[in-house]
Amino acid sequence: MSVLVVGSVALDTVKTPFGEKKGILGGSAVHASVSSSFFSQTIVVGPVGEDFPAEHTDFLKSRNITNKLQIIKGRTFRWSGYYEFDMNQAHTLDTELNVLSAFNPEIGDEIKKTPFVFLANLDPEIQLKVLDQLDQPRLVAADTMDFWIKSKREALHEVIKRVDYVLMNEGEVRMFMETPNIPLAARRLLKLGAKAVIIKQGEHGALLFTDNSHFNAPSYPQEVFRDPTGAGDSFAGGFIGYLARTGDLSEGNIRRAVIVGSVMASFNIEDFSLDRMRRLKPHEIAERFDEFRRFSEFEAFSLINWV
Amino acid sequence: MSVLVVGSVALDTVKTPFGEKKGILGGSAVHASVSSSFFSQTIVVGPVGEDFPAEHTDFLKSRNITNKLQIIKGRTFRWSGYYEFDMNQAHTLDTELNVLSAFNPEIGDEIKKTPFVFLANLDPEIQLKVLDQLDQPRLVAADTMDFWIKSKREALHEVIKRVDYVLMNEGEVRMFMETPNIPLAARRLLKLGAKAVIIKQGEHGALLFTDNSHFNAPSYPQEVFRDPTGAGDSFAGGFIGYLARTGDLSEGNIRRAVIVGSVMASFNIEDFSLDRMRRLKPHEIAERFDEFRRFSEFEAFSLINWV
Repeated sequence: MSVLVVGSVALDTVKTPFGEKKGILGGSAVHASVSSSFFSQTIVVGPVGEDFPAEHTDFLKSRNITNKLQIIKGRTFRWSGYYEFDMNQAHTLDTELNVLSAFNPEIGDEIKKTPFVFLANLDPEIQLKVLDQLDQPRLVAADTMDFWIKSKREALHEVIKRVDYVLMNEGEVRMFMETPNIPLAARRLLKLGAKAVIIKQGEHGALLFTDNSHFNAPSYPQEVFRDPTGAGDSFAGGFIGYLARTGDLSEGNIRRAVIVGSVMASFNIEDFSLDRMRRLKPHEIAERFDEFRRFSEFEAFSLINWV
Repeated sequence: MSVLVVGSVALDTVKTPFGEKKGILGGSAVHASVSSSFFSQTIVVGPVGEDFPAEHTDFLKSRNITNKLQIIKGRTFRWSGYYEFDMNQAHTLDTELNVLSAFNPEIGDEIKKTPFVFLANLDPEIQLKVLDQLDQPRLVAADTMDFWIKSKREALHEVIKRVDYVLMNEGEVRMFMETPNIPLAARRLLKLGAKAVIIKQGEHGALLFTDNSHFNAPSYPQEVFRDPTGAGDSFAGGFIGYLARTGDLSEGNIRRAVIVGSVMASFNIEDFSLDRMRRLKPHEIAERFDEFRRFSEFEAFSLINWV
């Protein structure tokens, strides 16, 4: 089954302890759709300016992604930032919204029935506009960021009520639900109406909470780590792309999808922009998934004549 | 087989968002030996002052712990501190070393052949004095803290060379090995001579690194969380107590021991001091171990006709 991704398209300037790159391809919709495209036919919707380089459009085409980018008069959204030594947090130097501020998503008739939908990080009011246009999707997942938690809390509540999966990072869910206790924050979020919440913990893995289950996905012992930009979107793209590929929404398969998301994020951060994804091969994905299993499995407790 | 624990004995004054307790039982040797005592015959060595309450000695006796505490003229070591809302870090208000500064561990002939030894957090020079007295232990694990990393780096290097398992928390191993990258820090630590390193990540679980393997132990979705004091020592006590109980040092069993450690730490933090451990039952330990399995297991990757 196919996947629809709606989000931002960006030209990023990123500095990490491993280098600085100017005007490189980025944006939540790009990272998520490229990751999803390894598993399922993927459609991308997002705003680009008239200056958006043809080479980037060509790259999306090379990944067999259906290009529904909306070309808007003006310049493409630009983000500039840096990461310090521990690369745990992005520090924004400059944000030029440009065409992003004029983005009014149009989900055409030919794509509004797409069964799997990922609403990548965007103004929750824009995410609601997308939800209004969808025609009975099978599963919708939505991401957000601290900026919207602070500035558009009510719209974000509305998004959460209307989607199946909410993705947030640890700091965001703590801020949003006003408790440092992650399991408690997750339960509060579920009470707002989401069916499940996935909490991304960066180098510490990911957690999945539903009303009656909990899953802890291990982290990857990442020694090659050059640029964290797009990790969360690569996670989401892998997660939803894998679910769409298999069409199986059982608990066991959703757990697998969380691992696939973790695998895709772990590749994405190995290089700047989408550079690692450009040369990523499916067998590498399957091998890394096996690694996740090997370094997290353990046998049952068995003490004989204990107590 | 039996376990020898050497470390501090303290009377703690602790404030967390869930209350304040004055002069409660604590110390690295106490938390570790009580945790270990659920699995193996445990011997505790550490310094106490003449003021050490008999009720605490009685408690150790009730856990069937062999009491080799050294009574030294003066007052028992006292620590006073608090934890903020997220309880991630202890803030020290006051430290009265008292008899701890005069502690010269004597490992008598009757206990120097103990096969499993845990050197809980102490001045590494004191840990070396213990190592000098041991007679062919089968496995020695050692813990430390940031204070010794800063002040006694050389002695700590020497301890690491001479023990099998080094336990550190995430922040400590980063500081000690001068890199924010945990897998890299772990590899550097192994090069110093330890056979294995266990990195405690608090609410994010624990990692085990050896030269040729890696294990990621999941975190526990902890909703009841009142006082983090002693979590690391409860972990270590459970880890070594379980290994001594089984006598099995295979990779698979060491992984189980890391989970047992995580289980014991998760109980310890549910109440102040040793209060949760006082009422803990073995069947609860086995049940929580099963929970750790249930919320971290996932099946193999299996995409048919992929790529």
